[in-house]
Order: sequence, then C-alpha cells, then structure tokens
Amino acid sequence: MDLSRSPLALPFPDMPDIDGVTPRIARAQYKDWDRCDLTYVELAEGTAVAGVFTRNICCSSEVEIGRENVAAGRARALIVNAGNSNAFTGYRGREAVEQIMDQVAEHLACPREQVFVSSTGVIGVPLPKDKAAAGVEAVLETSPCSWRDAADTIGTTDTFAKGATVSAMIGDQRIEFTAIIKGSGMIAPDMATMLGYIFTDAAVSPTFLQCALSQATKGSFNAITVDSDTSTSDTVLAFATGKAGNMPLTDADDPGADAFIAALEDICRQLAHLVVRDGEGAQKFIEVRVSGAVSDESARRVGLAIANSPLVKTAIAGGDANWGRVVMAVGKAGEPADRDKLSIGFGGIWMAREGQPLPDYDETPVAKHLEGREVTLEVDLGLGEGRAEIWTCDLTHGYIEINADYRS
Amino acid sequence: MDLSRSPLALPFPDMPDIDGVTPRIARAQYKDWDRCDLTYVELAEGTAVAGVFTRNICCSSEVEIGRENVAAGRARALIVNAGNSNAFTGYRGREAVEQIMDQVAEHLACPREQVFVSSTGVIGVPLPKDKAAAGVEAVLETSPCSWRDAADTIGTTDTFAKGATVSAMIGDQRIEFTAIIKGSGMIAPDMATMLGYIFTDAAVSPTFLQCALSQATKGSFNAITVDSDTSTSDTVLAFATGKAGNMPLTDADDPGADAFIAALEDICRQLAHLVVRDGEGAQKFIEVRVSGAVSDESARRVGLAIANSPLVKTAIAGGDANWGRVVMAVGKAGEPADRDKLSIGFGGIWMAREGQPLPDYDETPVAKHLEGREVTLEVDLGLGEGRAEIWTCDLTHGYIEINADYRS
Repeated sequence: MDLSRSPLALPFPDMPDIDGVTPRIARAQYKDWDRCDLTYVELAEGTAVAGVFTRNICCSSEVEIGRENVAAGRARALIVNAGNSNAFTGYRGREAVEQIMDQVAEHLACPREQVFVSSTGVIGVPLPKDKAAAGVEAVLETSPCSWRDAADTIGTTDTFAKGATVSAMIGDQRIEFTAIIKGSGMIAPDMATMLGYIFTDAAVSPTFLQCALSQATKGSFNAITVDSDTSTSDTVLAFATGKAGNMPLTDADDPGADAFIAALEDICRQLAHLVVRDGEGAQKFIEVRVSGAVSDESARRVGLAIANSPLVKTAIAGGDANWGRVVMAVGKAGEPADRDKLSIGFGGIWMAREGQPLPDYDETPVAKHLEGREVTLEVDLGLGEGRAEIWTCDLTHGYIEINADYRS
Repeated sequence: MDLSRSPLALPFPDMPDIDGVTPRIARAQYKDWDRCDLTYVELAEGTAVAGVFTRNICCSSEVEIGRENVAAGRARALIVNAGNSNAFTGYRGREAVEQIMDQVAEHLACPREQVFVSSTGVIGVPLPKDKAAAGVEAVLETSPCSWRDAADTIGTTDTFAKGATVSAMIGDQRIEFTAIIKGSGMIAPDMATMLGYIFTDAAVSPTFLQCALSQATKGSFNAITVDSDTSTSDTVLAFATGKAGNMPLTDADDPGADAFIAALEDICRQLAHLVVRDGEGAQKFIEVRVSGAVSDESARRVGLAIANSPLVKTAIAGGDANWGRVVMAVGKAGEPADRDKLSIGFGGIWMAREGQPLPDYDETPVAKHLEGREVTLEVDLGLGEGRAEIWTCDLTHGYIEINADYRS
C-alpha cells in the first residue's frame, strides 16, 4: 500500500491574505530532519481569540496554558512546534512553553498571555529549551511565508497539506476566513495530534467568537474519528483581527452574526473532513448518517459507535456490504434502540428495514457504491427525530503499518 | 502471516466425563462445508442452569429466549448451531429456535423451556428450519462424542479447539468441571461470537449457580476484549447435574461454597484467556494491570480504555515500548486520573513515575519483554486502592486480513 500520500487528499486551495495575520516558518530541528518545524503567526493588536481543546485528562502544558489564556480573549502571536508534543513532561515541559511565551512577548512588547503555543509529536520528551530559543529567534527575523508553507510546517505524519478558505458578508462588508490544520487522526497522540488554526479579518468580540467556535466544533471536529483515540494535545484556535471593518459582532442576534456562524461552521467542517481524508491508512471517506434517534446527542453516540467499530471499518475497507456489523454497532452503543424498528442502508439503498433484511434486496449497486472512495452509511432507528452525521475512514493494513512502527 | 492456527494456542486438555452430561454432534450443513456444525448436549433430569448473556440491544432470539428460560433454573438439553447466528432475522428467526426447542423437548418428554439453543455465524439470514430439523433428528440418533469434537463443532473462525477442566472438594466430595468455549473475539458478531458452556456434576441450586456465575463473569469474560465490538449473541451457560452427591449448595455461606466459587472462577478465567489467545490476528497475549484507581470499577474502565486502544495494541504488535500511547489511553478513559501521579511500566519495569519519564530508564529489558508472546503492562494511577486486570491481544495485519474479507 502506498502510504506516501492519501488517495483521499484534496489539492491545497488558493488562500487569500488575511489583513492583520502574517505567517513565518523556521527550523528548530526538534527532530533530526531536513525541514521547517516551527511556525510563527503574528496577529494585529486587538485580535480576538477563541479556542477548543482536548478533553484528555493527561493533556499537555500547552493545552493547560492555552485554556487559561483564551479566557482573556486577546492574542498577538501563535507558535506551533512540530516533532515533539511536549506532553507528559511535567514541570520541564511547562518551563519550555513559558520560555517561548516570554521570548515572543518581549519581541512584541505584549502581555505573555497573548502568545499561544502548540506542540505536536512524540510524548514524554521535554521540548528542548535551547532549540526552541534558537528557533524562535530565527523565525522572528525571517520573511513572511505562504499559507501552504505554514500548513506543511505544522504537519508531522500528515501526507498532504491541509487548508480551507471561505468568505461571508456581514452587512455589506465582505469578510474572509483562512485556516490550516494538521492531523492524521483526531486521535493519535504521539504523531498526529490534531491542531487547527482559523484566521479571519472579521471584527467580533472574543465571547461571541468563543460561542460560535464551540457551536461549530459540535458538527465538525467533534463529529469525526479515525481510531477512537483522543489526543493529549488537540487544539483548535480561531483568531479574528477585526481589520475587515464590519460592525463588530458581539451577540448571536446581531445582524450578520448568522452569516459569520455559518461561514465558521463551513470552514470547521472542511477542516475536519481534511483530517479524516488523511486518516492513517485511509482508503475510503465514510459518512455515517443516523436518523430516527430519540435525540441528536443519542444519534451522535450511535454514529460514533458505528464509526469507531473496527469490524464496520474493516468491512468497508474490504468493500463488503456487511450490514450485520452495523446492527452490532448500533446494539452496543448503549443508546435507546429497538432491533425491530432498525433500518440500514449503504449509498442510499436500504438493505434492512424494521429489523429484517429486505427480501428483494439486490447487493449489486451497493457493492458498486462500496468500490468508490466516498461511502455513505445510513441508519434509521425509527424512534424519534434525533439525527447526526459522523465522518470517519476505513481501517486498513496501512493503519497497522504506520502504527506498529512509528516511534522506534 | 500464517492465520491457520494462533501462535498463542494451548493444547486441548484431557477432559473428564461429567456424570449426567452427554455430548453428540451432527451435520446440519448450515453452510456449504464439510464438517459437523450442530452440537447437542443431553443433561440429566434435575440439572440446574445459570446463564449470562450479551448486553447488546440488538441481540438474537436465542439470547432473548435463553434469558427467559434460565430464570426457571432447569435444563435438559443444549443445542448449538454453527455457521449462522440467526440474529436480526425477526419472527422467522424466532420460529426456527422454537421449532428446535419443540423437537428436542418432544424427544426428551420435557418442558420446552428446558431446551437451550445458541447459534453463531453470519447475521441477518434466518436459520433454515428444514436443515435444523434434519440436523436435530440426526444428532438425536448418533453416538456420544468426545469433548474435543464438541469443542471443534461449536467453533466458526476459531483457529483451535478450546476446553478447560478443574476440580474442587465440597466437604469430602470431589466435584468436576469441564467446559468448552468458542470465540475469536468477545466481540465479532458475524463470525466469532463468544459461546461458552460449563458442565459440573456438583449439586447446587439454580439461584446459587446464577450468583456464582455472575460473580465469576466479572473477572473473566467481562475482563477481556479483542476489538471492543460486543456481539449480538454472546452467551455463557453453566449446567450442574448434581450427580457428584455432595451436600447441595444453595447459599454462598454453605460449607464448600467457597471452593465451588473459586473453581468456577478458575475455569471461567481459563476460558476467557483461551478466547483472547485466539483473538483475530493475535500474535501476543497482553495482561493490563491497573492499580491505584479510586475504585475497582474505575480501574476496570481504565484497563479497558488501554486494552481497546488501537494505538496501544499496534505499538505492542510492533514491539514498541511506546508508553506515551498508554498515557493517552488513561487520559481518554473518562475516569479520575492525575497526570502528575501516573506511573507506567512494561514487564515489571517502570518507565515513567508520577507523571515524568524516569531519567535512568533503560529500554533494553523492556524491548526484550515485548519480543515475547506474553506481555504485561502496568499502570499505577496513584489515587486509591482500586485495581483490575484486563486481558487482550495485539492488533495486527492478521486482524485486517480476517475482517476485511470475511462474509463476501
């Protein structure tokens, strides 16, 4: 299996500049490799920030500090280290993060709480302070880079650079969003932590930005899974420079707030899908659509039980319309379900209705659908109005190849 | 990878006859294969029965009916069909089970509620009534078989026959247990459902037997996982013929009850380990020992989060002492944990203590331990007295091979 580039990769889009946002990259040599591994993004004064972070209890210092600082709502800079997650490194790891914050804050003459740091890579090795100091010094003196270069630099085991862009109108003012993300799993702690960064020139309050980001996360980052393993460093940050000059948004009822939220949801979903498309060993992009649940949250849990089932994922990898495994996954989800009301389909074709296989079911078109790169799987629980969509990828030999031999 | 026989297989033991228990096998041809696939075990009048069943909501009719009938506490016969699980087949599946119960009950002149039926194999195809009827007719006329033959006949994708035997003293009366089990996962609904049957000549009340079996299940069947997928048909039944002539046990305080419970726990654990040893694609048997949790139940959940983590299982498959992935799994378990009190070891060697890698940690002996077939992984949460042991296997290319191409 060729694992050098996911067959589900999308081309890197043309990304507009965002007024007040300047990316730069440098080499800190966190690993012994011939590539840039330190990304710096400078943000205009007054930039609003919001963030969502991993719920893994064993999270990194970066996540702990980021969670504290996002509460103050303002950002001047972002640093991303690739090759070392600095997680599970105790006080030494925390000192390295604080050193970077101090160094950048001094350069910008800003409070250090406005400097955000992320790290991704191996767990359990403290981020080397000397390499970090030299890398930060170098990056502050370098010229701005393209978004494509920044997307490459935050990556680790990613097989393609991931970016997305959308625009929206707030009143008669056009606003732009650009975003980059890395991850080859939501969910792979020592190699493919998911880190995402969204930049917009919109003028919004930090509180509004946080609410909008939290809402957008539900149907995007929290609706994907590659392997059910939750990273210690997952972070998504949204930065809004305010340079677009729109009437500032501070509340969901403000004119234009709907357009902003819709655009943010759009870009978050694009980013989330890109991560699944680079899922470790992925050969197929799978959309799981659950309807008829007692609530949306119940539908989400059923969808995740299906999307995390190794037996469902291997069946789809093998192009096998094995809906019995979907029955199993629904039944183990721990959510209300009634075997005799359950319907299951692939690619829009129902194979089982209300607890029984359809007598006239023809597997040919379903087998054809499963041969493709994009697979949809529909489950109707027949109980209520709850629905959810979850995205995942198949489970292949590639996943074993990558993960049985990563760190050593 | 040679998948024809697990490298973790154990030889089939010499199994004593149990007074009042007679196994027979026959060919029902549920699939187009050249082997016996119907097992019949006749039980002496007055045999006590107890059972534990899958908690999967989408369970089979066999499980539903078995759960009802076990409440009456008496059994005269067991029928096991291999090659078709009869799950998710609606009223047609239920009719097939009831037909078998009627046929056997008429032969034995017993209430049909004393006939227990299990089925294992593909989901969604009703068990063919004509094949079942002919198979049952044939098996009732055949001669008794060995336990080894019975163990082979209940298997599907199993790579070796699984049996265990123990004995115990109740007062001065020796009692015997023999047991057979099938499964290549706790947890693989359309090919390797776990079915286990324990036979003893002890005299015990059904209520006592049920309590003892439920207790024994906790530290055995409910403490193993191959791939986190819970079957629609999992069933373990215990039958006690009473022929040993001991003073009947009716309560945990009766003299000899401790010995009976200890023997039952021993045989359940042996059976559970055999299933893990035949885990799909398994190359290594893994024992996860969790201590220092706030409760035993919390330790169990942390242990399962580790044992179900694809990243932990692939690391061990690759012989990689990647304890960062264990940190991740502890952190995602949703149980009380404190990163800075967490210690992790492999094979009795601690590599991280209280949230930090040990500075003098030498990976050489750990790498040596991971080269073996039997791996132990220790986690001390440092919070309380709760402990648990969980058993699993590694996740290898063999798992993908087996499951990406089973039904088609």
